[in-house]
Amino acid sequence: MPKEGITPRAQDYSQWYLDIVQQADLADYAEVVKGCIVFKPTGYAIWEAIQRGLDDRIKATGHVNAYFPLLIPKSFLMKEAEHVEGFAPEVAEVTRAGGEDLAEPYVIRPTSETIIGYFYSKWVRSYRDLPLLINQWANVMRWEMRTRPFLRTTEFLWQEGHTVHATEEDAERETLLILHEVYADFVEKEMAIPVIKGLKSEKEKFPGALRSYCIEAMMQDGRALQAGTSHNLGQNFARAFDITYTDQQNTIQYAWTTSWGVSTRLIGALIMTHSDDEGLVIPPRLAPTQVVVVPIYRNDAERSVVMEAVQRMTAEWKGRLRFKIDDRDNLTPGFKFNEWELKGVPIRVEIGPKDIEKGSVAIARRDQPGREGKSFVPQDGLTDRLTALLEEIQQALYRRALTFREDHTADVATYDELKQQVERGFARCYWAGTTEDEKRIQEETRATIRCIPLDQPQQAGRCVYTGKETTQQVIFARAY
Amino acid sequence: MPKEGITPRAQDYSQWYLDIVQQADLADYAEVVKGCIVFKPTGYAIWEAIQRGLDDRIKATGHVNAYFPLLIPKSFLMKEAEHVEGFAPEVAEVTRAGGEDLAEPYVIRPTSETIIGYFYSKWVRSYRDLPLLINQWANVMRWEMRTRPFLRTTEFLWQEGHTVHATEEDAERETLLILHEVYADFVEKEMAIPVIKGLKSEKEKFPGALRSYCIEAMMQDGRALQAGTSHNLGQNFARAFDITYTDQQNTIQYAWTTSWGVSTRLIGALIMTHSDDEGLVIPPRLAPTQVVVVPIYRNDAERSVVMEAVQRMTAEWKGRLRFKIDDRDNLTPGFKFNEWELKGVPIRVEIGPKDIEKGSVAIARRDQPGREGKSFVPQDGLTDRLTALLEEIQQALYRRALTFREDHTADVATYDELKQQVERGFARCYWAGTTEDEKRIQEETRATIRCIPLDQPQQAGRCVYTGKETTQQVIFARAY
Repeated sequence: MPKEGITPRAQDYSQWYLDIVQQADLADYAEVVKGCIVFKPTGYAIWEAIQRGLDDRIKATGHVNAYFPLLIPKSFLMKEAEHVEGFAPEVAEVTRAGGEDLAEPYVIRPTSETIIGYFYSKWVRSYRDLPLLINQWANVMRWEMRTRPFLRTTEFLWQEGHTVHATEEDAERETLLILHEVYADFVEKEMAIPVIKGLKSEKEKFPGALRSYCIEAMMQDGRALQAGTSHNLGQNFARAFDITYTDQQNTIQYAWTTSWGVSTRLIGALIMTHSDDEGLVIPPRLAPTQVVVVPIYRNDAERSVVMEAVQRMTAEWKGRLRFKIDDRDNLTPGFKFNEWELKGVPIRVEIGPKDIEKGSVAIARRDQPGREGKSFVPQDGLTDRLTALLEEIQQALYRRALTFREDHTADVATYDELKQQVERGFARCYWAGTTEDEKRIQEETRATIRCIPLDQPQQAGRCVYTGKETTQQVIFARAY
Repeated sequence: MPKEGITPRAQDYSQWYLDIVQQADLADYAEVVKGCIVFKPTGYAIWEAIQRGLDDRIKATGHVNAYFPLLIPKSFLMKEAEHVEGFAPEVAEVTRAGGEDLAEPYVIRPTSETIIGYFYSKWVRSYRDLPLLINQWANVMRWEMRTRPFLRTTEFLWQEGHTVHATEEDAERETLLILHEVYADFVEKEMAIPVIKGLKSEKEKFPGALRSYCIEAMMQDGRALQAGTSHNLGQNFARAFDITYTDQQNTIQYAWTTSWGVSTRLIGALIMTHSDDEGLVIPPRLAPTQVVVVPIYRNDAERSVVMEAVQRMTAEWKGRLRFKIDDRDNLTPGFKFNEWELKGVPIRVEIGPKDIEKGSVAIARRDQPGREGKSFVPQDGLTDRLTALLEEIQQALYRRALTFREDHTADVATYDELKQQVERGFARCYWAGTTEDEKRIQEETRATIRCIPLDQPQQAGRCVYTGKETTQQVIFARAY
């Protein structure tokens, strides 16, 4: 029986997603502000967990945070040719302020390469100032026509790293360090989402980049979601904004820059990777609440006995588990079970008078809804058991997502096979086509090259489209 | 001898402040974006420490974070009469987006009561939904004419809490809880800045509030700085945005709301409370770096001996102290001493070959520049000694600031005395004047009522301006 308020995935995946967002109370539509959402407390708490995990890794790899202006003089956007083409059509413009028309409009940052480039050109003087390794947590705005909560919203939250290096090699090393040690590590280990690391094709790369790397995840409908990007910007922005340094031979050189970002889109990836027809599923390491305790009682006498047992039981959880005790009196246990299932809390612990007599509790795993995930365990050693179970759930979610991706990925040798495969998942194939070929394929199949995986085959093969021999494989898929 | 690049306070306090901001590398002027600054890594790290301290307290008092849109339909601002008067003249307006003129402009939030009020009216239905206790970390924008780094910038960063309650009493309790347990507690204990808690006068209260409470600090030039405000908004915004709930008797009632905020202005308060003519001074609990180790050596052989000792010494600091080892080879110890003094690191540890022989190190306290703060101590037990010293410095900074404030606060009985006292600090006096009286005093003295302190005298006295008998005392001062 489908859960009230949640359209089953098999029936309408797109509606299922919107239902989860609403039923788990993650976001509200900001109808009065075009294409925006309100990040409600339950949704924002997930973003805070994502921020912590990423910020730790960003700092552990030698970066520091800073904050640059929200507004960018419109003319700045024009300084890098590809960049202006990519972003100019979708900016919001501030044309009046303090009651007066402005001589030059500002745009609200769609991304900050240009404004940060301006300051870096002032700050960088000598090779001793390099590398410059700065990250920013910020809101950005892109005036999108078709929006969907978390996945594509006019305003969204993100981090954007911007670094400056003396050589191309250093910039490339940075770009890949972020891809591996920050993004892939975080998304796989904390969010339990397996990703494919790869290079973007020319058609899909960031406007103004030399090379864009990405991590791509598969959603439960077989479509790809770009979960993070790391760009080697070459000397493009250094030339546009005059970021130069004096090298050890006292010669002035253009610097090499990188930029990299992940956004609140990751919340969308989280939902579409793990959740089910019962509601949201959050991996334990990321979950703001890992364990919810639902006390069971029928009257005040039972209540006081049960609540006392709950206090005793949870006393040693502090600092070890993130937990909530749901002692709301006006709601039935059944209502509470349903609510915490919807909200994706990894483990539910139920305890009533009979459990207390027996010295046990009932445990329900969110990743295995229904009887299968329910068990009765002794109260003795419960904290260790829960800690171990959380880790088990974390691994189980990752394995399930990985298995799903593998089951929905296939090697294809012909264009017909490709067309069929992108209906159900990722098509891996040899590729020696042009950007024009890729555009044609997109028109015909709605699939694009998601990435050129860093893991490449040893032997050559024939391009799925042109038949040319090549050693390069790519992943084609429809994407969010 | 004045430090290079820093104007002594006695010579020009205002220039001293700007010099500290620049020399400690806290911020850069964003000349290309009117009235904005870049929060450079050193400055932003202080903001991160402030955020952590406040966020912990905000959550410990039962609040959760969320995120609302940056843009507000311009018409929303008009819905509360005092609010529009206060903020409409200083907003930035988005009139174009996605290449088209907008039918209705948006304003960039100067504060979010209106947009959040809109959503609260949707979310609040029953008394069971109350209290609603939400906080937001965000950037806001007010088109200021005269700006100064951190103290007043067009764009700034802050947190803004917005809560909804069933009764006036609940709203008042919330307003004061934030004032005491979040703001005063954080600013006094972590930032070592003593504050006076009080109520704003009618003239100075938040546009749209019933009552505004504040914490006021004294800067080293005797002027006041409002370090945080907490507003009981009464039913003003509930009426403007139709925030109603059904009570237990099934009657529809207007709710009571509050809002409260502190901003990156606190960084300005930090600088002007503790810093000296040598540079920035940061209280240890807030300091991103608490201890800096400067190894002393003249050649490679000495370097390897010293660095080995440094590694041994600092091994047990991890997790106990926030420290940096300054092993840059291209700079002299003297240069490094100067730089860390400028940047306000609370303790410097120097260690060279002779110290190693003697089993000692040299310690320099930032709060006592020169010989006075320097001592030689054994390496044995160093970690405990440093931990204790950090706490001692924290207390010393608080005491020094408190003594300064007390020395620069005086009770005044006549308007002439008031005029003299506001030249040097806070004037405490009985007050029974009107808003018109207050405006006249401001025109004549540039001083305003900073607050009506919560601590009030037991006996009555005569108003400093009107001569009327009253039991109410206020603080007059010039303010930032």
